[in-house]
Amino acid sequence: MQKNDLILRVLNGEQTERVPVWMMRQAGRYLPDYMKLKAKYDFFTRVETPELATEITLQPVNQVGVDAAIIFSDILVIPQAMGLEVLMEEGKGPSLPRVIQTQKDIDALRTDGVEESLNYVTEALSLTKKELNGRVPLIGFAGAPWTILCYMVEGKGSKTWDKAKQFAYTQPLEAHNLLQKITDITIQYLIAQVKAGADLVQVFDSWAGSLSPADFKIYAQPYLLQIADALKPHAPVILFPKGTWHAIKDLGQSSAAGIGIDWCIDPATARAFAGNHITLQGNFDPAKLLAPIPDIRNAVKEMINGFGHHRYIANLGHGITPNVPVDHARAFVDAVKEFGVNPTYKK
Amino acid sequence: MQKNDLILRVLNGEQTERVPVWMMRQAGRYLPDYMKLKAKYDFFTRVETPELATEITLQPVNQVGVDAAIIFSDILVIPQAMGLEVLMEEGKGPSLPRVIQTQKDIDALRTDGVEESLNYVTEALSLTKKELNGRVPLIGFAGAPWTILCYMVEGKGSKTWDKAKQFAYTQPLEAHNLLQKITDITIQYLIAQVKAGADLVQVFDSWAGSLSPADFKIYAQPYLLQIADALKPHAPVILFPKGTWHAIKDLGQSSAAGIGIDWCIDPATARAFAGNHITLQGNFDPAKLLAPIPDIRNAVKEMINGFGHHRYIANLGHGITPNVPVDHARAFVDAVKEFGVNPTYKK
Repeated sequence: MQKNDLILRVLNGEQTERVPVWMMRQAGRYLPDYMKLKAKYDFFTRVETPELATEITLQPVNQVGVDAAIIFSDILVIPQAMGLEVLMEEGKGPSLPRVIQTQKDIDALRTDGVEESLNYVTEALSLTKKELNGRVPLIGFAGAPWTILCYMVEGKGSKTWDKAKQFAYTQPLEAHNLLQKITDITIQYLIAQVKAGADLVQVFDSWAGSLSPADFKIYAQPYLLQIADALKPHAPVILFPKGTWHAIKDLGQSSAAGIGIDWCIDPATARAFAGNHITLQGNFDPAKLLAPIPDIRNAVKEMINGFGHHRYIANLGHGITPNVPVDHARAFVDAVKEFGVNPTYKK
Repeated sequence: MQKNDLILRVLNGEQTERVPVWMMRQAGRYLPDYMKLKAKYDFFTRVETPELATEITLQPVNQVGVDAAIIFSDILVIPQAMGLEVLMEEGKGPSLPRVIQTQKDIDALRTDGVEESLNYVTEALSLTKKELNGRVPLIGFAGAPWTILCYMVEGKGSKTWDKAKQFAYTQPLEAHNLLQKITDITIQYLIAQVKAGADLVQVFDSWAGSLSPADFKIYAQPYLLQIADALKPHAPVILFPKGTWHAIKDLGQSSAAGIGIDWCIDPATARAFAGNHITLQGNFDPAKLLAPIPDIRNAVKEMINGFGHHRYIANLGHGITPNVPVDHARAFVDAVKEFGVNPTYKK
């Protein structure tokens, strides 16, 4: 029995008594209790030990009062499960020593046994679901195929992703083969997450904004839509292709229940692009959490006024940064709970 | 006497026989002859020695056939001239050991003698102008105040610029004082560039896209408009606030002669946002220069069809990367010369 199902009702298009709120990357980084676990266990130990992942997932629910928990994990578990080594050096970002360059590399990627090798995620979801005991819904997630391709080809973070783009532009058939392979596995993985207890799932296309609108339609959008279509019978899906204001209109017509919006678009404009038949989520500038609390409150109020109280989930426009004071994160959540009360709601 | 004044006539709103073309960062990096100079002289020697800067500036005119030269320099000469040390380690990007944190730091910035300390730039412009002998117009440039503030506060490149944004959000008065100080000096500096021989100037707001539309209007746009207003009697100005599709409409109403457009917006949409009374410049995805030449040609053709042949300067949507083969850069330029011929032009 879900005691707080605000976010699920909003994704279902229902009027709610107030706007729900959570924060991307809320499970970790800025929380002192997370930093203690981080000092003790390395990244993949935290991700792969269900008890630790659960503890981290619950911290922001207990300490900041968000309306949803998001499982502590990483988008790069997919390349890992497909057989690519992923190194995570603290402060340096991820790196993949062996990158994808040819069809032979793509053929060598594992496609069976992926679910089994990721059962630490489904275990963590089941355990978290039990621990949550219906307090708030649980979010599962995966990286979008374009973003996963970026890491697989580039081997590490990049400002321009020009190796990944060069791969797509010079070997488009291979790129589509790889994107399809990632898509198929991501769909399986997300369905497994739902079966294990995720009430909704989000797909992070963090590097979608590196593509021109025309190339986004070729290399990113079709795979996002496949995932949204495949997941629809199982759970609501939120697509978050960061930096793609130009795609909001098309995605507003998709099977997705929601679209994540970054902070580089005015809320009212995002709503105008999306239409009224899809839920929008976002779009507070993460750096504004460093502003004085009264300014955070004002900015939250303006954001909610821009998006409106219907079909809207308050969130950041990108992940929370480690330097945000906890009381600022809490002020953000509290401001949504205050200004997000729907004045026209009737039971 | 200017033999090729295409870009100036386009910025003046005239119909021209074809679309002019140049490439951001064309002076250097991808050219083998530049790499030879780079191996011999460090960055600031190249920038501060007028003969070297001139030689580098002329290379793409001679070797790739662009319709304008842009002076070889760097946007960080302004913080340098204001008294901040700037280090440029090859492969690492710029860094400023002493950063701006307080009003006292801002007060300590030099504002007089800035022109004198930058006379290596004006000398390079004069020498280049002479060497060009009217072949193509010469472009001067500066960083926009917001982007310069980003480096002054952050001390180095950043993915999120959250220290710079924290400074603006927590000390807005100081931020505006600093932005105004940078603006005043930038105006002087750009006018000096015009007097020394620049036929037009471009203002690079490379990190404008880190701000929300509302904050862009507070911390970036007013200073861009001041620069455009102040330069208008002297030379045409192109404003290039990267990542701010949302500002195109407003900037289309400004004193600027042109707006730079990044590749993350469809050309026809950019034109619709801007209206017909301003020149647009852009917006080829720099990574697409890594595609096979026939694909480069097709993409150039589509880009020109999107922007149209009037009030349009073909360019990249951001700087050319060092890994672009010279014949691909040349294919880009040649394709503009072929597909950019204006079918409706009458002398």
